[in-house]
Amino acid sequence: MAIPKASQAFPRSEYLRRLTAVKSEMQRRDVEVLVVTTPGNITYLSGYTSKSGYVPQGLVVSLKDEEPTFITRRMDGPAAIHQMFIDRNHVIGYPEALIANPDRDGYDAIIDVILEKGLDRKSIGLETEFLPALIVEKFRSRSARAKIVDCTNAVTWIRGVKSDLEIAIMREAAAISDAGMLRAKEVIRPGVREADASAEIVATLVRGADGKPGTDVTSIFLCATPRTSTCHICWTEDIFQQGSQINLEFSGVRHGYTSPLMRTMSIGKPSDHIRRLHEGEVAGLEAALAAAKTGRTCSDVAVAFNSTLKKHGFEKESRCGYAVGIDWTEPTASLKEGDRTILKPNMTFHLMLGNWIGEDVGYVISETFRVTDAGGEPFTKLPRELFEI
Amino acid sequence: MAIPKASQAFPRSEYLRRLTAVKSEMQRRDVEVLVVTTPGNITYLSGYTSKSGYVPQGLVVSLKDEEPTFITRRMDGPAAIHQMFIDRNHVIGYPEALIANPDRDGYDAIIDVILEKGLDRKSIGLETEFLPALIVEKFRSRSARAKIVDCTNAVTWIRGVKSDLEIAIMREAAAISDAGMLRAKEVIRPGVREADASAEIVATLVRGADGKPGTDVTSIFLCATPRTSTCHICWTEDIFQQGSQINLEFSGVRHGYTSPLMRTMSIGKPSDHIRRLHEGEVAGLEAALAAAKTGRTCSDVAVAFNSTLKKHGFEKESRCGYAVGIDWTEPTASLKEGDRTILKPNMTFHLMLGNWIGEDVGYVISETFRVTDAGGEPFTKLPRELFEI
Repeated sequence: MAIPKASQAFPRSEYLRRLTAVKSEMQRRDVEVLVVTTPGNITYLSGYTSKSGYVPQGLVVSLKDEEPTFITRRMDGPAAIHQMFIDRNHVIGYPEALIANPDRDGYDAIIDVILEKGLDRKSIGLETEFLPALIVEKFRSRSARAKIVDCTNAVTWIRGVKSDLEIAIMREAAAISDAGMLRAKEVIRPGVREADASAEIVATLVRGADGKPGTDVTSIFLCATPRTSTCHICWTEDIFQQGSQINLEFSGVRHGYTSPLMRTMSIGKPSDHIRRLHEGEVAGLEAALAAAKTGRTCSDVAVAFNSTLKKHGFEKESRCGYAVGIDWTEPTASLKEGDRTILKPNMTFHLMLGNWIGEDVGYVISETFRVTDAGGEPFTKLPRELFEI
Repeated sequence: MAIPKASQAFPRSEYLRRLTAVKSEMQRRDVEVLVVTTPGNITYLSGYTSKSGYVPQGLVVSLKDEEPTFITRRMDGPAAIHQMFIDRNHVIGYPEALIANPDRDGYDAIIDVILEKGLDRKSIGLETEFLPALIVEKFRSRSARAKIVDCTNAVTWIRGVKSDLEIAIMREAAAISDAGMLRAKEVIRPGVREADASAEIVATLVRGADGKPGTDVTSIFLCATPRTSTCHICWTEDIFQQGSQINLEFSGVRHGYTSPLMRTMSIGKPSDHIRRLHEGEVAGLEAALAAAKTGRTCSDVAVAFNSTLKKHGFEKESRCGYAVGIDWTEPTASLKEGDRTILKPNMTFHLMLGNWIGEDVGYVISETFRVTDAGGEPFTKLPRELFEI
């Protein structure tokens, strides 16, 4: 019995629209075939979210074919047939003999397909972000007729501007993030173990919101006293105490898409210092969103935030945010002074205003938003509070 | 106020023992300094589990220094000081100006440290598994006096043999995996949404077992009818039905260490075909563990499994397992025919006997074990059952 197609998160027309944009970029770069290896870009162009990327796999986009071809380990083929919008004949499973084989691996299977299809006469575009140097060299030597063109982030930049369908999915992810934060507010109490509160938060992120479950779990950062100056660690075995501060960052996930959210909580009254920092940050957040209009730049948003925060007597060293979507961070545009990326409608950013000062002060607040002509429109419905418990 | 040291999962002597083994390997390769970039290897040599690896970072091991030096984004410095066993002066934070900067990035900061310390006179070892080719080129061009030696997996091979302290932590992770599987058996019922059962499983993996919480969450694979031929997908929005089969794979996590576990569940009686496959697989599992003795090879274990399964009328295409530990798969030894790696005491493997046949049959069972003179000793305490619900 053949495995059925999953119900798709997006219609076929949406994937074809994305592929048209990618093919147009390929033509601009004079590339006949593009080998997509970054997992988030494979998701973007096909709907595939299975976790097979720890072994070689590649989505081959050719100017000649409407649909791409996916080359993957044979045991991951059924998941690809199930999840991807493409025809089952466009999923090619390579044999297990290529796993943990130093002489011939899954990338050889990808090169074989390119050579068999005669796609090596012009240039081959390659996403090299996650490719070891030896593999790039293999592409070069085995397809000697073709020029290898580094196309890292070409698809990622296209992903930067979301469709309305993608925005709808990111709102679903945001609703899950909100549910997780509200659950955090309920379960964080003196005497509770950080891990037990985290268990409740994670479970909420999986159960989801509005009848739509989370489709995956991603990092949960819970940095509580005395670790509020850290930003990327999980919970610990410690017990929350009266007076503890808790910095939270996590995201619901829907079909690969994330809408990260950060909030600070305090068990009991926060210090005056943290309260003043919070006020400055919220003012900065509002100024940044007001500046995030179509036609302005990423730098303008950062300047709006930084200058407002400065008026409140604080500074933030780290950037104010980054492009966000599938698999969280898109390594393209940054909300930082000097980034001249021009804002377009439906670009989405994580306005990440975590502010870690020295080793004992850390405060976090963030919102994921989309660019509109009227400014940044956040996806969260949570108040901009320093939650007091 | 300085951030305090976290309570450490291992004593200092354990880290120094690991570093001694690494330095000995460096000498064998005539490498004066080693730049460790694989996150699992950084964890192994320092205790660091913070999720900062999405931007450049490197642990620099020098033959001249007892402790390594960690170069990381400045905002991740406090987490490194907190979690790593090393002196705070050996954590160097690079400025935010190097983030999302195409001209100069965190790898330049690492190269700067090597040049300043005068460590570029001999060879520089580099883990290139996760390094883009352009970065390897940067190391080559900026440290022109030195030869760049690819040391990918050098540390990973050393990690292959665990200490008794590491085995104890992996047993803790295994107890959490067991708790998750038992929770799955409780919550998987007809009419329940896959996502809701998964929420309970994930929460259990975070709460932990025996008073020891999970320290992180990693992938949860729940592949239920009609998706039992897939292996690396998460739960869906579907509802379990009478007659559904559910293939589960996940792991508890303790301080980065995993002990993955797979079991198959069936709501109602499984088919005769699946029951016979289960019997063959369990017999193969027992044969594989019996063969996993000190001095035998990985290939011997695979032959024992495969020949036993064949007697039951089945075959399995994919390898029978792989080295396992920090961050799940160690890309070194494989339990497959032809892998001549000699088994040593306290090597740990995920004996992964998932068997996906065509597009409609899939059955999973697995155990994580350590090699002993008497054979493989599994960490799970679960029965080798096809759980009927």
